Amino acid sequence: MERVYGGIEAGGTKFICMVAEGPDHVINEARIPTVHPDQTIQQVIQFFEPHVQRGELAAVGVASFGPLDLNPASPTYGYVTTTPKPNWNQVNLRGCIQRALNLPIAFDTDVNAAAFGEHYWILENRSLDPFAYMTVGTGIGVGVLANGRPVHGMMHSEIGHAPVPHNWEKDPFPGICPYHNDCLEGLASGGAIHKRWGQAGETLPVSHPGWDLEAEYIALALTNLIYVFSPQKIVLGGGVPQHSGFLPAVRSKVQLLLNGYVHSPMVLEKIDDYIVPPALGNRSGVLGAIAMAIDLVKV
Amino acid sequence: MERVYGGIEAGGTKFICMVAEGPDHVINEARIPTVHPDQTIQQVIQFFEPHVQRGELAAVGVASFGPLDLNPASPTYGYVTTTPKPNWNQVNLRGCIQRALNLPIAFDTDVNAAAFGEHYWILENRSLDPFAYMTVGTGIGVGVLANGRPVHGMMHSEIGHAPVPHNWEKDPFPGICPYHNDCLEGLASGGAIHKRWGQAGETLPVSHPGWDLEAEYIALALTNLIYVFSPQKIVLGGGVPQHSGFLPAVRSKVQLLLNGYVHSPMVLEKIDDYIVPPALGNRSGVLGAIAMAIDLVKV
Repeated sequence: MERVYGGIEAGGTKFICMVAEGPDHVINEARIPTVHPDQTIQQVIQFFEPHVQRGELAAVGVASFGPLDLNPASPTYGYVTTTPKPNWNQVNLRGCIQRALNLPIAFDTDVNAAAFGEHYWILENRSLDPFAYMTVGTGIGVGVLANGRPVHGMMHSEIGHAPVPHNWEKDPFPGICPYHNDCLEGLASGGAIHKRWGQAGETLPVSHPGWDLEAEYIALALTNLIYVFSPQKIVLGGGVPQHSGFLPAVRSKVQLLLNGYVHSPMVLEKIDDYIVPPALGNRSGVLGAIAMAIDLVKV
Repeated sequence: MERVYGGIEAGGTKFICMVAEGPDHVINEARIPTVHPDQTIQQVIQFFEPHVQRGELAAVGVASFGPLDLNPASPTYGYVTTTPKPNWNQVNLRGCIQRALNLPIAFDTDVNAAAFGEHYWILENRSLDPFAYMTVGTGIGVGVLANGRPVHGMMHSEIGHAPVPHNWEKDPFPGICPYHNDCLEGLASGGAIHKRWGQAGETLPVSHPGWDLEAEYIALALTNLIYVFSPQKIVLGGGVPQHSGFLPAVRSKVQLLLNGYVHSPMVLEKIDDYIVPPALGNRSGVLGAIAMAIDLVKV
């Protein structure tokens, strides 16, 4: 009877909820605005309740914005921890959902889930190890898999806050990160684009020099990821990389930055298959959450 | 009868060869200068031959300077590939040793081996995941373990070539990397210290401002490693960190750079146990090679 799975992609502006067997068998889906946690979580629970009552849900995966406590031994396991988002600091997201639905709950970052989803559902990715998913949008994050499993360590990857070369002459913008000013997210997130140019990326003309600068920062971040982690593929998701011409510009800049040092056909010849858009489109996160739920209860 | 293991740490100036059961049971050890590969590899083989003839060697681990081809499916698996070191480009290091000794040969980078050694032989490290070893000396490298296994991807970690913030006003030195000028290794390797200050780090006085600059670059690299990979411990080996006061300076700078964003007692309160010198001293690499050999043939 229990044969379908729940997925939740908890984002800063909306929660995407899904009941599905997989990408081609979606049974129910909803978007719930992210407001006060009491209200949003209540609506999420209401979405799943009919499926729980019918006894058809086997497990639920939760893919959340962070930072998160992912340590099952910690008293605050499953919490959203130090987010600057009003009212969401130290919210027991996993616990609230688990208590209400009384089902096994898988829990991870939105980007680890997206990496897991792209790896789990896309056949050609299954054998790739390690594997990375990077998002560039409101925030910048990366999910990394080793042996097909999301990497959890002291906390989880927070590449958005990594130090990045900042050429002040070329880019006098001081950055917007409240912790580090000109870290990657401080210089290259959607918010940084908006603040630097006085308009959102969505309205920035195709020929605006801001796009070249943005591609430069993202290429630096990918080059860094390649040198530290050496993934066999990098999926580049989020809103910013959907801009026309952005992905080809980033790929060229990565090749220029590597400058031939990494002697692999993956970056030398087949970079179009190495740095790729999400095969699951904008559903990598929620379908990753579904995959996490399946993985949690598989026998 | 086969109950001891061989280890080789292949470095740019010397090959350390060892026959052992573990750190406390070393049976034989030798240092062979790194000259032409024909000559060096011949001497390495001669070191192991008596042990092979007695039938006591079960396997040999090779921990080598890189870059290396670590892909067992590749025609150049086991080669040192694009090293600038004269005569060592495209040398079939693993194959030559395997053919001469006719034993199972484990093969990895010197830093992956050192990470594996510190993780395998030091009981308190065994449960830490992920785990990282960084060396700062002639070169800068990092070995990373996930689930206790070295991470191999498109190639292997090459953190020495990662882009690093370069404050030209504070440090007008252009860097020495033949590929990238002012990458991490270009600015902070032993060679960079020598070129920038006109003397080797070993002779640089304790109070010389070069040490503060060096600590700054290494702290930036560790901060980057923390944000990308979130290791549960970082072992900092190599010659440079042995300088008096260097490790404490690096730890303070890492805390300043993180600026409270990573809410873990590991970095907030116990950073002395988080960024640590190698427990195996300067034998992490060769004892890691021994551990790799044991791991290769374990039943």
